[in-house]
Amino acid sequence: MRYTNMFLVIDIGNTRQKVALFDHDGNLVHLEQYAHLLPTDLLSLCSNYELEAAIISSVGEEIQTLIEPLRNQIPIFTFSEDLKLPITLRYGTISTLGTDRIACAVAAQSLYPNQNVLTFQAGTCLVADFVNAQNEYLGGSIAPGLMLRFQSLHNGTHRLPLVEPHPIDFLIGDSTQNSILSGVINGMSAEIDGLIDRYASTFPNLKVIITGGDSELLKSSIKNSIFAAQNLVLNGLYKILYFNVSEV
Amino acid sequence: MRYTNMFLVIDIGNTRQKVALFDHDGNLVHLEQYAHLLPTDLLSLCSNYELEAAIISSVGEEIQTLIEPLRNQIPIFTFSEDLKLPITLRYGTISTLGTDRIACAVAAQSLYPNQNVLTFQAGTCLVADFVNAQNEYLGGSIAPGLMLRFQSLHNGTHRLPLVEPHPIDFLIGDSTQNSILSGVINGMSAEIDGLIDRYASTFPNLKVIITGGDSELLKSSIKNSIFAAQNLVLNGLYKILYFNVSEV
Repeated sequence: MRYTNMFLVIDIGNTRQKVALFDHDGNLVHLEQYAHLLPTDLLSLCSNYELEAAIISSVGEEIQTLIEPLRNQIPIFTFSEDLKLPITLRYGTISTLGTDRIACAVAAQSLYPNQNVLTFQAGTCLVADFVNAQNEYLGGSIAPGLMLRFQSLHNGTHRLPLVEPHPIDFLIGDSTQNSILSGVINGMSAEIDGLIDRYASTFPNLKVIITGGDSELLKSSIKNSIFAAQNLVLNGLYKILYFNVSEV
Repeated sequence: MRYTNMFLVIDIGNTRQKVALFDHDGNLVHLEQYAHLLPTDLLSLCSNYELEAAIISSVGEEIQTLIEPLRNQIPIFTFSEDLKLPITLRYGTISTLGTDRIACAVAAQSLYPNQNVLTFQAGTCLVADFVNAQNEYLGGSIAPGLMLRFQSLHNGTHRLPLVEPHPIDFLIGDSTQNSILSGVINGMSAEIDGLIDRYASTFPNLKVIITGGDSELLKSSIKNSIFAAQNLVLNGLYKILYFNVSEV
């Protein structure tokens, strides 16, 4: 049996590359992760499905070679001025805005339409993105993610070790290892709480979403009420794809 | 004229190396900073002063060669089990505890004796250290400092630029550059505020001190009441030196 009318979503991140298939109701039906995705991976993954359209987002890697084999088979949407969005971008430099950030904002607006909503992506970077109650994307912030913090402490100092992340239940570190664990994990969750407080003081009834590989490790330390969403970027990309296919 | 009875304090940090001279009343009389301090620098700096004793703290560099020329002239205190401290160390691994952190804690306790006091060193790392109202040092946390955050975003991702730090007055970054500035500067000050809130919820009447090269850039963004102290580590080292000389 072949699944029909599926939507292909490709997300090329700094650390991980994801390929997802969504059905017409927006359900994530299949998800694969790769360290380095090849055109042949895409073809073999897609051979069991009848695809309707595809969208691809990349934080930096060249994508033309990757999607070449699919070019003549289905419409492939990439981020360009022609791509329609269900939110308005109020950003100074849209041409350099990460497409994963746009996808996050679209997914957040879809979850909380006409509300102030702040998202955190806890991946290679800790990226915050804000959509206001007028469904306008205003921007946000980019800070180092969990692993970058552990690595930079080791690489940027004379004698701090490289510490492996794991959940902690203490505030005060009583050894070098525990001081670093507290500094990175409690530090990041305190940073997220402090940023939420700053947005909430300006934007009332703020909703907050966290996503990304390190959100599990962080969310138990976060004091504010926050919704942990899996695959927010993929869901946002699907929303954008569906929005453009429907508009045709 | 030669100044007499001066105390020599040497602080070898990850990025900067400082040499200070204190008088008997604890006033910092002279301060020099070096990228790489040499024994000849020490000798020439000290030639105008009559020294009583010296103390040296280092986060990693070998110090024996550096202080060799002074060895036969004055007592030189280094951090060892014999060094007496005006606070009690309640730390799991004292042998690997950074001596700059001990100095910070001693200076903090001297400013706020018998009170709960939290210090932040905003240097290569963002180091937090806590002394309770019983004058016991309990430990703290170590996170990447301002420059390590800017550098790790550039070095650890595919296309983020290396951004030069400067003061900002916005929360929401509307360009890549401004998103990074907000992520690092607002992120660090939010982290400091969040950590202060966590300590304050356990330890009443908490006093907070910030020191280090990046404290100027951060302190205006910090919401909590916080005392900005210059040369906290040097002052702490002087206190330790004076405490040991007085005890002899």
